[in-house]
Amino acid sequence: MADPRFFHRTDAKILADLAHHIGATLACADDAGYVVHDVAPLDRAEITDLAFFDNRKFLHAFKTSQAGACIIRPSAQAHAPHGMRLLLTDDPYRGYARIAQLFYPSPTARHDHHPSAIIDPTARIGSDCTIGAGVVIEAHVEIGNGCIIGANSVISHGVMLGDGCHIGALCSISHALIGRGVVMHRGVQVGQDGFGFALSRGGHIPVPQLGRVLIEDGVEIGSNTCIDRGANSDTIIGAGTKIDNLVQIAHNVRLGRGCVIVGQAGVAGSSVLEDGCVLGGQVGVAGHVRIGAGAQIAGQGGVTYDLEGGKAYGGCPAVPIKDWHRQSVKLAQLIHPKRSS
Amino acid sequence: MADPRFFHRTDAKILADLAHHIGATLACADDAGYVVHDVAPLDRAEITDLAFFDNRKFLHAFKTSQAGACIIRPSAQAHAPHGMRLLLTDDPYRGYARIAQLFYPSPTARHDHHPSAIIDPTARIGSDCTIGAGVVIEAHVEIGNGCIIGANSVISHGVMLGDGCHIGALCSISHALIGRGVVMHRGVQVGQDGFGFALSRGGHIPVPQLGRVLIEDGVEIGSNTCIDRGANSDTIIGAGTKIDNLVQIAHNVRLGRGCVIVGQAGVAGSSVLEDGCVLGGQVGVAGHVRIGAGAQIAGQGGVTYDLEGGKAYGGCPAVPIKDWHRQSVKLAQLIHPKRSS
Amino acid sequence: MADPRFFHRTDAKILADLAHHIGATLACADDAGYVVHDVAPLDRAEITDLAFFDNRKFLHAFKTSQAGACIIRPSAQAHAPHGMRLLLTDDPYRGYARIAQLFYPSPTARHDHHPSAIIDPTARIGSDCTIGAGVVIEAHVEIGNGCIIGANSVISHGVMLGDGCHIGALCSISHALIGRGVVMHRGVQVGQDGFGFALSRGGHIPVPQLGRVLIEDGVEIGSNTCIDRGANSDTIIGAGTKIDNLVQIAHNVRLGRGCVIVGQAGVAGSSVLEDGCVLGGQVGVAGHVRIGAGAQIAGQGGVTYDLEGGKAYGGCPAVPIKDWHRQSVKLAQLIHPKRSS
Repeated sequence: MADPRFFHRTDAKILADLAHHIGATLACADDAGYVVHDVAPLDRAEITDLAFFDNRKFLHAFKTSQAGACIIRPSAQAHAPHGMRLLLTDDPYRGYARIAQLFYPSPTARHDHHPSAIIDPTARIGSDCTIGAGVVIEAHVEIGNGCIIGANSVISHGVMLGDGCHIGALCSISHALIGRGVVMHRGVQVGQDGFGFALSRGGHIPVPQLGRVLIEDGVEIGSNTCIDRGANSDTIIGAGTKIDNLVQIAHNVRLGRGCVIVGQAGVAGSSVLEDGCVLGGQVGVAGHVRIGAGAQIAGQGGVTYDLEGGKAYGGCPAVPIKDWHRQSVKLAQLIHPKRSS
Repeated sequence: MADPRFFHRTDAKILADLAHHIGATLACADDAGYVVHDVAPLDRAEITDLAFFDNRKFLHAFKTSQAGACIIRPSAQAHAPHGMRLLLTDDPYRGYARIAQLFYPSPTARHDHHPSAIIDPTARIGSDCTIGAGVVIEAHVEIGNGCIIGANSVISHGVMLGDGCHIGALCSISHALIGRGVVMHRGVQVGQDGFGFALSRGGHIPVPQLGRVLIEDGVEIGSNTCIDRGANSDTIIGAGTKIDNLVQIAHNVRLGRGCVIVGQAGVAGSSVLEDGCVLGGQVGVAGHVRIGAGAQIAGQGGVTYDLEGGKAYGGCPAVPIKDWHRQSVKLAQLIHPKRSS
Repeated sequence: MADPRFFHRTDAKILADLAHHIGATLACADDAGYVVHDVAPLDRAEITDLAFFDNRKFLHAFKTSQAGACIIRPSAQAHAPHGMRLLLTDDPYRGYARIAQLFYPSPTARHDHHPSAIIDPTARIGSDCTIGAGVVIEAHVEIGNGCIIGANSVISHGVMLGDGCHIGALCSISHALIGRGVVMHRGVQVGQDGFGFALSRGGHIPVPQLGRVLIEDGVEIGSNTCIDRGANSDTIIGAGTKIDNLVQIAHNVRLGRGCVIVGQAGVAGSSVLEDGCVLGGQVGVAGHVRIGAGAQIAGQGGVTYDLEGGKAYGGCPAVPIKDWHRQSVKLAQLIHPKRSS
């Protein structure tokens, strides 16, 4: 189980209720009343735990698991160990995620403004907000209901946050309108000047950055990630997009809905990622590029021109991923010609 | 116009004054008294706005723009829509930047030390400085006139800042001597130990880092960027150099004047960039390398040995950029031989 | 000498004591009483300074150095300038590091809790701890003796730190058990949620991250580096491992002992680096990969599958480093066929 020093687990639950919660079917109706105390991975689960199995790589762990209950695809029933209670669903990992949230819910906000927080009298703070120690909230900020603002974070003049946002410690937010249920981890910087200069030998002149950052509902942003505000339009992060740690999002960038941006990736100014794009770790996207919906770029790839949606790419400059793999093979053959065939 | 929630625009201005301010010529002297209320991009400008046109990619937007006035090169006059008032100059973007600064000036410091700031009595703070909430200023710090120190930033023992520096929220600065007009965005870390260890199987021993960080006038540093202090000499950032977000500058590095370092680039220990170098996003420069004045490295390039100035490079290891492009083409041909010719 | 504005040097020392301290031999016993006032590099050392020489690249500097004393390998004696006092050892750089620490020791903690720090009454703080201004220490935190916590850092519920840890300004630590003598520079984020989502078109569901971060003794972590807590097991950083700035360590990663992770490198979820691995700057390691003990990956390399220990690799995907160099040469030949031979 999760270390009780750090995690608070809720009460035990009845298997039928868990199945109902995720829309799964019990393989055996007699298991409906089985009591589950916790979630655990297959190899460490005990008789009172619920696990999940969704990847054939873990077939052995599934077959030998001591878990009292397990979420699986219907097709995996034949491999289940004798006596294991089974919840059948087409997306076991998603089911596991939702049940794990029941056992270990996110911290909930409650009305608690730490006395050391500096809150401007013109700021409007919703009900049931937790404002941490040392937080600075400037004039005309508006914060919705049920938000958490972590210690020593700084929310600048005029920023709006929707209901249910969780902002980690040591974040700064300015020039931004933020939707509901947005999560920022620690050290996130949102709304600073983009990198805009009129370059010249006589000295690079900063160009006033007059746009905003618009972050839609349900976005999650990893630690120490930076999102610059727009230069002459807005920087936009679409609903439900998930951004990992140490990512750079430059001015005027538009990310569609449901994108996934893995750690240390960067998107340069004015580029557009349509809905559902995935950037692997350390991917770089040049400025003024458009990536079509659902495109996926493998880690460390470099995108320097527009890419069609719905496909996977790799390499720098990025090419269709099969071509990238073939290039690697070809390079290996060039230096080891005897191995080529 | 820029969102008034976040941006304060100054009063309307006379076209002749704007032309004078940037050294431009009015195409038609009768336009001298025209009143401009704002700046805007070509495609969104209205009759009271000033725009600029400097890139043939936007020729259509120029021809169809509703802007009341526009800054252009003399050679572009023939394409201007009828009735548009024209300011002629050889560098329209630079002119636009300077006029946009008039309409939307940077925040100015004024005497305001937030009562929650912790300022050591031995620190010397110049006149008209804005010291934010929760700021920590340690002993023997010296801060010039007209500086802004953002909320919850930490200025350590003995640091000196020149006049007119703007330090964002959540920065820390130690072991540094900083010139005039230096801008740091949020979360910038300056002056920490460089990564110096005597490596050995028995345990890596830290080597005391005894240098400083010297930042010259007019440098700008992006959010969450790190600049380590020197090990046995100083880390130096030359005047007017602009550094983007999430950049790593290691110990003993020397950047010349007017360099441009784009987001997530990194320069390893003791390397030297001469004046006017440009590193694209995610470029890596190995340790003990020298890059000649005015060299430009394309995004994700890797510099592992000295490079001659005045040229463009790409790839890892970096080669002249034309060679890099040819390598990409050649690789594509190797796997698609029918397309080669 | 180091700038006294920032560095405090201890008293002069007798050469025999210095030799004894690092287990070196005096080349000439008559030099035992020589008084050393400072350390300095070969080219700037004066008669009262101690330098070291360990790299033939600096042979000229050694031959012409004014240093009063120098740490060298026994084999280098023949090149020493006349009259220079010599300390003989097999690892001069390590010897220099340890003597430099004598002249410029790390700051030591002393009992000093800044009155602006917010310390929960249930937290247990050891003796002789320096707690900076604006620090937030939450409930049930336990901090060992002789720790320094930098200004405005946030130590969350239940975190444990061993004796002698130095935490820089503006760090946040949660869900972590930390050993003795651990150093974190500024802006380090430890213990936040890993990037774990059940991806789906209907919306990416966050998977509760129920593991911890375990950091063993003597680890050092660079500025603005992020270490996520485990998802279902722990993220572990082995004893003595050194991590540079802006590094990303994802959930469930295990780094062995004595690893060296250079700036802007990233390790994706569940990957394992065995003892003594070295990742160059900007290296990326994909998820679920194992790298054998002592493997070294050159800067910007990309590791996408398991690598055998004890070898050097480069490129993306990473190959043995000689092959990577040969690939670069071969590519150059392909586009300049006349130069190939």
